[in-house]
Amino acid sequence: MTVDPRLEPVYARMRAAVASPEPITEPLYSWLRYQIGWANVDGSPALLQTGKAIRPRLCLTACAAMGADEARAVSAAAAIELTHQFSLVHDDIEDGDTLRRGRDALWTVIGQAQGINAGDALFAIARRELTHSPVSDALLRAMFERYDTACVRLAEGQFLDLAFETSERVTGGDYVDMVARKTGALLAAASALGALAGGASPEVADRMWRFGESVGIAFQIQDDVLGMWGDPSSTGKPVGADLLRGKKSLPVLLALEQPGISTRLRAFLVAAGSTHDEARSLASDMERLGLRDRSAGLADEHAARAMRLLADMALASEPLAELERLAHAAACRDR
Amino acid sequence: MTVDPRLEPVYARMRAAVASPEPITEPLYSWLRYQIGWANVDGSPALLQTGKAIRPRLCLTACAAMGADEARAVSAAAAIELTHQFSLVHDDIEDGDTLRRGRDALWTVIGQAQGINAGDALFAIARRELTHSPVSDALLRAMFERYDTACVRLAEGQFLDLAFETSERVTGGDYVDMVARKTGALLAAASALGALAGGASPEVADRMWRFGESVGIAFQIQDDVLGMWGDPSSTGKPVGADLLRGKKSLPVLLALEQPGISTRLRAFLVAAGSTHDEARSLASDMERLGLRDRSAGLADEHAARAMRLLADMALASEPLAELERLAHAAACRDR
Repeated sequence: MTVDPRLEPVYARMRAAVASPEPITEPLYSWLRYQIGWANVDGSPALLQTGKAIRPRLCLTACAAMGADEARAVSAAAAIELTHQFSLVHDDIEDGDTLRRGRDALWTVIGQAQGINAGDALFAIARRELTHSPVSDALLRAMFERYDTACVRLAEGQFLDLAFETSERVTGGDYVDMVARKTGALLAAASALGALAGGASPEVADRMWRFGESVGIAFQIQDDVLGMWGDPSSTGKPVGADLLRGKKSLPVLLALEQPGISTRLRAFLVAAGSTHDEARSLASDMERLGLRDRSAGLADEHAARAMRLLADMALASEPLAELERLAHAAACRDR
Repeated sequence: MTVDPRLEPVYARMRAAVASPEPITEPLYSWLRYQIGWANVDGSPALLQTGKAIRPRLCLTACAAMGADEARAVSAAAAIELTHQFSLVHDDIEDGDTLRRGRDALWTVIGQAQGINAGDALFAIARRELTHSPVSDALLRAMFERYDTACVRLAEGQFLDLAFETSERVTGGDYVDMVARKTGALLAAASALGALAGGASPEVADRMWRFGESVGIAFQIQDDVLGMWGDPSSTGKPVGADLLRGKKSLPVLLALEQPGISTRLRAFLVAAGSTHDEARSLASDMERLGLRDRSAGLADEHAARAMRLLADMALASEPLAELERLAHAAACRDR
């Protein structure tokens, strides 16, 4: 496969970051490469499709939007992507997911104990990468303040997501509180760190943070829509898959607030052994009740908010168009 | 209980770091306070004996040893102690330990998924605390480099420790590689960061890093000795407890290299359902063969190395005496 040449410097930094410093720790680092898609289970090299890489793209583009050379944001972009990979390692264990991008999830290959620790290693490596940013010491301090805040919020978001699974009362507002952290925090950091590396003032960095957060919220809502009604041929999951997992996605929360369907949905969620057919039928009825449109509409609202945040900043025109495209794509994937 | 007044500013920073910023995340932060010993399971305030606090003490003392005000190292000391607490949260899950300081381990109270995530939150909070250090931007960058290196090495050490459990061939050298990371890294960072905050040159910070690492190795070997032969009334564990857990402690590794006892030990380690009496008898025979003295001798060697590293530096005399006392205590606990 080919790699977007723009992302090559980011991947080069990431590759250097997950090279084992000594032979004795080689297995640990080969597991990290497996997680990213650069190694097979046996440690031999692989090159998995790297995905949309929205976080590093946002980071580089935010830097360019300040009129600066993207190279200044390469380490920040690598750090954010490594942090995202860390969160996936732990999320899979916490959710009991055994597959990740069509392969065995890392923890199923190396066991849970080593899996938790491999995630910790990746988290520490990610942060160390940020220190390598070719920026002034004062700027680095500002970048760390935002990065560490994002990491704390990431964990807060995952706490809320896990807590919602067993909670009776979760509102749409709670949902936004959760996804603003769980998905929004790293996209916010990607945007703000890229902007700071490019010379943004604190005020512009704040605005770019909120831009990224809004993109993240739109992205997650759209992810929920796809998890409920997405085309199985492109999502790789059957219609209603998230229903069977009992996930408190936005469409589910909206349905639970709606008198007619809520009783049936509640019964479905507590019942054991529901089938794919039942999930598909429930998902169809939820769509007929307008819940798909309402969800997608909320994603659009957050994407529009992101667009508005871009206005009033004196951004370079090409990167501005790219930021708008990223924001638009987040809210409009495959629909 | 009374808190050492010297540590009060450190605990004040830690308390502020684990206060929930918003009501919606309060349960997560109350779990972090439970881990540290400042809350009961229900979130009500508690004040558990805070332990020896060797890491924050090392950090503050290293700063004072440079002739500087300890206040400069308070955030670094808090960050290191929070990082230590993070590692305990994950270690307990990875090792399946259900008790921590006589109370239920955090993950047994909140479940494994929330437990993993609470550890991640504590790690992110720890790093954020370091950013608050009242030092110049250039100095902070140098502190971050050492701190992040220590965190990577901490994860490498835990990888090795877990890998050794199922490995047939582990040598004494492998053991030192492991504990230099697993226990040494944070003590090294505590010493080096404290010294840097106090104005140390990179060379002196290197030396203080190696000092802390040596103290850590001595500390861990002595921990292994206590886990095998320690007085049950002071360790709270029966003689031979580590044998029953199958832990590849230093005494076990030394015994596995010794022809006579190795066959019996190997059989013991693979047998299911060994009793406390059998473990006690095996531990006694290992002591008779001189393995306790050899282990303790190695702890002494690393402590002596730590002492030598302190020489040749122009350290303030009172903090120097305190550093010597900490190094000595690490290698000579309860024997």
